[in-house]
Amino acid sequence: MTEAYVVGAGQSDYGRFPDESYRSLFRTAYEDALESVPDGMAPGRIDEAVVGTLGVGGRQLGLAGPAVTEHVGLHGVPTTRVENACAASGYAVRQAVQAVRSGMADVVLAGGVEVMTDASGDAVRYWLGVSGETEWERLSGTTFAGVYAQMASAHMREYGTTREQLSHVAVKNHANGAKNTHAQLGFECSLSEAMEAPVVADPLTLYHCCPTTDGAAAVLVVSEDVVAEFADEPVRIAGVGAASDRVGLFQRDTYAGVPAARKAAAEAYKAAERGPEDLDFAEVHDCFAVAELMAYADIGLCTPEEAGDLVASGATRIDGDVAVNTSGGLKSKGHPIGATGAGQIVEAFEQLTERAGERQVTDPSVGLTHNVGGSGGAAVVHVLERAEVGP
Amino acid sequence: MTEAYVVGAGQSDYGRFPDESYRSLFRTAYEDALESVPDGMAPGRIDEAVVGTLGVGGRQLGLAGPAVTEHVGLHGVPTTRVENACAASGYAVRQAVQAVRSGMADVVLAGGVEVMTDASGDAVRYWLGVSGETEWERLSGTTFAGVYAQMASAHMREYGTTREQLSHVAVKNHANGAKNTHAQLGFECSLSEAMEAPVVADPLTLYHCCPTTDGAAAVLVVSEDVVAEFADEPVRIAGVGAASDRVGLFQRDTYAGVPAARKAAAEAYKAAERGPEDLDFAEVHDCFAVAELMAYADIGLCTPEEAGDLVASGATRIDGDVAVNTSGGLKSKGHPIGATGAGQIVEAFEQLTERAGERQVTDPSVGLTHNVGGSGGAAVVHVLERAEVGP
Repeated sequence: MTEAYVVGAGQSDYGRFPDESYRSLFRTAYEDALESVPDGMAPGRIDEAVVGTLGVGGRQLGLAGPAVTEHVGLHGVPTTRVENACAASGYAVRQAVQAVRSGMADVVLAGGVEVMTDASGDAVRYWLGVSGETEWERLSGTTFAGVYAQMASAHMREYGTTREQLSHVAVKNHANGAKNTHAQLGFECSLSEAMEAPVVADPLTLYHCCPTTDGAAAVLVVSEDVVAEFADEPVRIAGVGAASDRVGLFQRDTYAGVPAARKAAAEAYKAAERGPEDLDFAEVHDCFAVAELMAYADIGLCTPEEAGDLVASGATRIDGDVAVNTSGGLKSKGHPIGATGAGQIVEAFEQLTERAGERQVTDPSVGLTHNVGGSGGAAVVHVLERAEVGP
Repeated sequence: MTEAYVVGAGQSDYGRFPDESYRSLFRTAYEDALESVPDGMAPGRIDEAVVGTLGVGGRQLGLAGPAVTEHVGLHGVPTTRVENACAASGYAVRQAVQAVRSGMADVVLAGGVEVMTDASGDAVRYWLGVSGETEWERLSGTTFAGVYAQMASAHMREYGTTREQLSHVAVKNHANGAKNTHAQLGFECSLSEAMEAPVVADPLTLYHCCPTTDGAAAVLVVSEDVVAEFADEPVRIAGVGAASDRVGLFQRDTYAGVPAARKAAAEAYKAAERGPEDLDFAEVHDCFAVAELMAYADIGLCTPEEAGDLVASGATRIDGDVAVNTSGGLKSKGHPIGATGAGQIVEAFEQLTERAGERQVTDPSVGLTHNVGGSGGAAVVHVLERAEVGP
């Protein structure tokens, strides 16, 4: 089984872009990824493409993969769209790893794209709603904020988590996003602003919720056989884990964690022969503040009871023991559904190749990405390592 | 690189089922697939699932994969939805092959599902339309029948194909479908009925067009390491090929063929070390009658000029040199978008394991499936062989 490496990764800005389309955003990410390859890559080297998108607003619901790859000139390569709600492009990267390890491709473009801000609030609720459980959640009026509010309430009740601790997630991620020129909400917020913002779904305030976002991300995954052509110090995808679960929160084992993410992380660590103690940083799926606290436990940084204290202690800041969401996370960087998972890999690539500028973690060697679909119906985790290859 | 085998395959009936849901149809296909495994398979052996669906009508647009796998009790396995319009589950099977060959899974469930008949005609046109080119096809009023009518006109003009020859496709496929208890339109039609039926989009009559369909199909793909546990005479996936192309017909190199399918077939033959001369049968994507004639040339059975004569000669009947669409094809068996590609593999499995009853080709050893997305924006081809494994 050949190893899989990331040799390039790029993204568009995340935000509201009325003059851009899903195709033009994807092009920006694709070109940025190609340009990031240390020793260069000709587009003709790409054997295959995998594209994650939900298709919010109903744009190009079929052949969404070829629709974006044709736009960047990759007409002939096999292009597959994958969808797992907000974990679409985390799964796209995983599929690229399978393609490479299968021997059926040497260079795979994995990415994602979403355009959300031109849809009305009702339309966005509809499109996100159909990623949740239909009969007992969406049709009974439950929004995603409502589902995560239930998870936050359970976390508070079971583990003593406070609204102040939830707010520390927002403060930290906005502080990081303020250093990221790609971030949608690239400004800092104070603890009191986060705590006292209008309530979206009790106990979650506006600052506990990620925005709706336009954006794209792209990653170039290559095989061991060809990696030295593109980089001497690539990023190795050391382990991948994935799992699904019941789509409806009410049908799962717990309201205060994401079992699929826990399972995916365990599988990724095992494959990588690594554990949480090896991590220098992690990009986790903080669609709502409580989701970051649940992720801390699901990826093994602490127990669920300790999660609130961990963020409040500063241990997950850029200069902390394990930096979490150096990009700003979904909260500040933004959450263009289909692009988010690949965008996390972009940040991991930038950290491990020391390109993260003001957000740079000191000398990192191992990072993790944690991407969740829906409220936990799907999850995918990658463990990535700095590597050296070459003659 | 490990080999990939099919050890089980099943499907629901194809048709109009107001009392079924996408979940219940998938369950039927899944249970049928499990029951077809010669030496049995426990559901717990399934490591991963890949589900193709377009989501016609807007049902479960996000997490559509986990939504069906949870319904059959596979809560924990990684489940990915893939979409390439009408080629969704052909690509799902291909992804299963990659998963197995990557060493990341030993047993993969690949399938597809679609529910179409509860949507209005306008809704179906919309949902199929968003699988075509948006600006210059759908928004200018072109339907899929209209696109394929342009292809049929080009085929007639360039290669001398006649409406009578197109009608022979319908006659043959209805004759086959009449022997398939799963078929939606399981009745015979005469040449005159096919020729004189109402025109849908000139030159295509009603009998030159496939129906809208509810249905599901499922295939169990396993690795070389475990195949002997499930069957002594499985079906080997000897070669897989895939390609994409411009989504819009007007942007492609020809109106009278499907370049992506030609490329996919060449790749599949090369991987299998086989050629068209080795085929005993093929399941091809006859969404419209002209599509079957284009497929003949794209998979190398004849030149484009010869395609009309080939079907009229009877050479592609069940008792002909190369039986094409023994299942009845999309025309008679039906075309539940997301299920179609996996459904073709079901027929190939039944033929190669001598389970096809009245449709059985005599002693087949090699077959091919040809699955096209949109009007040719994506295509995937599998070459399958009868195999022997075991102690």
